[in-house]
Amino acid sequence: MIYLDHNATTPPLPEVIEAVTDCLRDGWGNPSSKHGFGQRAKSALAAARAEVAALAGAQPAEVVFTSGATEANNQVLAGALSRPGVPPRVLLSAVEHAGFLKAAQRMRDFGVEVELLPVDGRGVLRLDALRAALERPAALLSVMAANNETGVLQPVVEVAAAARAAGVPLHVDATQQAGRLPLDFAGWGVDLMSMSAHKFGGPKGCGALVARKGLSWPALLPGQQERGRRGGTENMPGIAGFAVAARHARAAMQAEALRQGALRDALEDALRETLTGLTVFGEGAPRLPNTLFIAIAGQSADRLLGRLERERILAASGAACSSGGSEPSHVLAAMGVPPALAREAIRLSLGRDTDGEHLARVVHVLRSLQSETAVAAA
Amino acid sequence: MIYLDHNATTPPLPEVIEAVTDCLRDGWGNPSSKHGFGQRAKSALAAARAEVAALAGAQPAEVVFTSGATEANNQVLAGALSRPGVPPRVLLSAVEHAGFLKAAQRMRDFGVEVELLPVDGRGVLRLDALRAALERPAALLSVMAANNETGVLQPVVEVAAAARAAGVPLHVDATQQAGRLPLDFAGWGVDLMSMSAHKFGGPKGCGALVARKGLSWPALLPGQQERGRRGGTENMPGIAGFAVAARHARAAMQAEALRQGALRDALEDALRETLTGLTVFGEGAPRLPNTLFIAIAGQSADRLLGRLERERILAASGAACSSGGSEPSHVLAAMGVPPALAREAIRLSLGRDTDGEHLARVVHVLRSLQSETAVAAA
Repeated sequence: MIYLDHNATTPPLPEVIEAVTDCLRDGWGNPSSKHGFGQRAKSALAAARAEVAALAGAQPAEVVFTSGATEANNQVLAGALSRPGVPPRVLLSAVEHAGFLKAAQRMRDFGVEVELLPVDGRGVLRLDALRAALERPAALLSVMAANNETGVLQPVVEVAAAARAAGVPLHVDATQQAGRLPLDFAGWGVDLMSMSAHKFGGPKGCGALVARKGLSWPALLPGQQERGRRGGTENMPGIAGFAVAARHARAAMQAEALRQGALRDALEDALRETLTGLTVFGEGAPRLPNTLFIAIAGQSADRLLGRLERERILAASGAACSSGGSEPSHVLAAMGVPPALAREAIRLSLGRDTDGEHLARVVHVLRSLQSETAVAAA
Repeated sequence: MIYLDHNATTPPLPEVIEAVTDCLRDGWGNPSSKHGFGQRAKSALAAARAEVAALAGAQPAEVVFTSGATEANNQVLAGALSRPGVPPRVLLSAVEHAGFLKAAQRMRDFGVEVELLPVDGRGVLRLDALRAALERPAALLSVMAANNETGVLQPVVEVAAAARAAGVPLHVDATQQAGRLPLDFAGWGVDLMSMSAHKFGGPKGCGALVARKGLSWPALLPGQQERGRRGGTENMPGIAGFAVAARHARAAMQAEALRQGALRDALEDALRETLTGLTVFGEGAPRLPNTLFIAIAGQSADRLLGRLERERILAASGAACSSGGSEPSHVLAAMGVPPALAREAIRLSLGRDTDGEHLARVVHVLRSLQSETAVAAA
C-alpha cells in the first residue's frame, strides 16, 4: 500500500515498537511505587520527559504527559476558566482542530464568550483581527502551529508577541508540527502547547501538554502524578515509545523536512502540469513540508479517494476525525472556499516511508482518472 | 524478584505484549480514517470492545475506552453536575481512591456539597448511613467495588438497589475488582463503572468507562469518537492489549481467584501463627482473594518494606498513588484505625505469578525480623 495519510496517523518506527515492547516486558513497574522496581520506572519516566522536552524546546519540568493532544487541549480549556478572576471569554482561530473547536463551543452553554478569529484565503490567521480581539480581556488565546488539513503554518511568533502584550495566556496546538518542523516553546514565549506521539512515529494514546514553568493551570485529571498536573498511573509503554519517536524525529527532522518538502513540491508541480482545474489549498502560505491539500475541478473527493484506494493509494478528504460526516471542512469554509469546491478536496500527507515512486504513481492515477472523465464527457 | 504489589500494577501477560506489538506493527491505522486500512482498525476496535464488555457484564455499546480509570472517574464527576437540573450534591464512600476523592473534593470550590459516606471498622460501607444520605436528592453516588488497600468488597447489589430507589445515578469504581472477581454491570443495575487494564495483566494507559445504554452523560473529552462519549484518536495498541487481558482474565478468573485466595489465606494463617501483634485490616469482611493488608505491632511500614526489599520481596505501604507522602492511609482512618497503627500497615497483593514458595519466603523474612527485634529489645 502507498500510505499518504500521515496527518491522520503514522506507522510507529521500529525503534518505537521495540521500546514499547521492552517497557511492557521489563519496565512495567508503577512509577509511584516506592520500591526499587517502581523507582526504575520513575527514572525511565524522567529520561522520557527530557527527550520530549528537547523536541518541544522546553524544560523537562514543563512537560506533562497526557493520553494525547485531545486531553491536553481539553486541559487547556478547562483550566482557562477555573482560574480566579479571569473574564469568561476565549479566543480561538477558526481553523483549530474540529474536536477542540467543539469542546470550546460547548463552553457557550455556560455563558462563556467563544470568539473564532478569522483566517485569510490562504488559511493564515489575520493578525489585524487578532490584535482587535485582544483589545478586550480574555482568559485564553489558542492558535495551532500547523493546520491538520492544509498544513498551513500560523505566525506563532507574532501571535505570541500580541498575546504577551495583551496579557492573555497563549496555547499552541502543535500536534501536526511536532516531529515535522522545529518547535521552540521557550523561544516563542508560549504558555501552553499540545503534542501527540502518533503523528510522528510514536504510539497512539500518548501525548503531552507543555506548560510554562510557574504557570498556575489546574489539572483536568487531579492526582499526585506529573507534579500534580495530571493524575493517573502513567502510560509507561506509550511514554517510552513517545520518547524514542521524539529522539528520532529530532535527529531526522532537517533531512526529512527537506526530502519530503522536495517530494511534495515535485508532486504539486507534476499535478499542475498534468491536470486541468487544479486548486491547491493554502497556496502561497508557509506550509508543512509533507502536506498537499488539493481539489480537481469536477471530481468529487469520494470518487478520487475511491479510485486511489483501488490502486492501493490511501489518502483522505480532510481530517480523519471529522470524516464520519459529510459536512465540508470547516477549515476550507473559514478560508472562504465554496462548499461545492470543498467537497472535492483531498489531502495527501507524506511521511518517512514516502518516496518518489509512490508520488509518480499518484500522478499517473489522477491523470488517468481525468482523461477517462474527459473521454466519457466527449 | 518476588512481586507482591499487584494492586499497584501487574506484569503484562505475554499474550498482551504480543497483541500490543502486533497492533503497532500491522494495525496502526486510525479508526476514523475512511479508507480500508483505517476501517480495519475500526473492526479491531469493535472486537476489543466486545471482549471488554464481556468482562464487565455489559453490552459492547456501553463500553467507552479511556486512558484509564482516573480519566473514567473524572468523566463521571464532570458529567454529574453538567446535567441540567441536578442538585449540586455528590455522595462518595470515604474509602474511594485518593485521586478520585481529591477530584471530588475540588468540586467544593464550586459550591458543590461533597458528602463522604462512612464505613465500619472492617471498611464496609454503612448501608444505614447510605440510606439516610439518599433521603436528600443527589447528582451522583460513587462506591468502589473493591478497595485498593484492604481489598474489602462493598455490597454493590444493595447499594445499587438503594440508589435506584432514590433515583440517584450510581458509579462503581471497579478498578481493583476487574479481572479478579466477576463484574456484572447489567445485573447489578449500575449506571457507570470504571476499569483499568494494567491491574490485571493489560497495559498501562488504557481503561474504560462503562455507561448504561440510554444514560445521558456528557463527555469529558468531546469529539466524534466512542459514539461522542470520548474524543481523541483511540489508543489502539493499549486497547488491543486490554482486550486480550480481559479475555484471559475471564478464562482464568475462577481458578485464579480460588488459587490466590487459598494462598492468601494460608499466608494469613501462617503469619498469625508465627508473629505476635498481627493486625489484619478488613478482617471478617468479604475481600479480594489476592489482597492482605496487615500491621505488625511495633514495626513501622518503612522498616518492614525495607527489609522485605533487601530480600528482593516487593510490597507497599498502601496505595502507590499516595505513597509519595507520609500521610497515613485515608482508608484506614475512615475505618477508625489510629494513625500510629496505620503507619505500620503494609499491603501484600498477589498475582498470577505468585506461588507458595514466594509466600513461604515472606513468612520467613517477617518472622526473622520480629525475632531480631525481640532479641535487640531483650
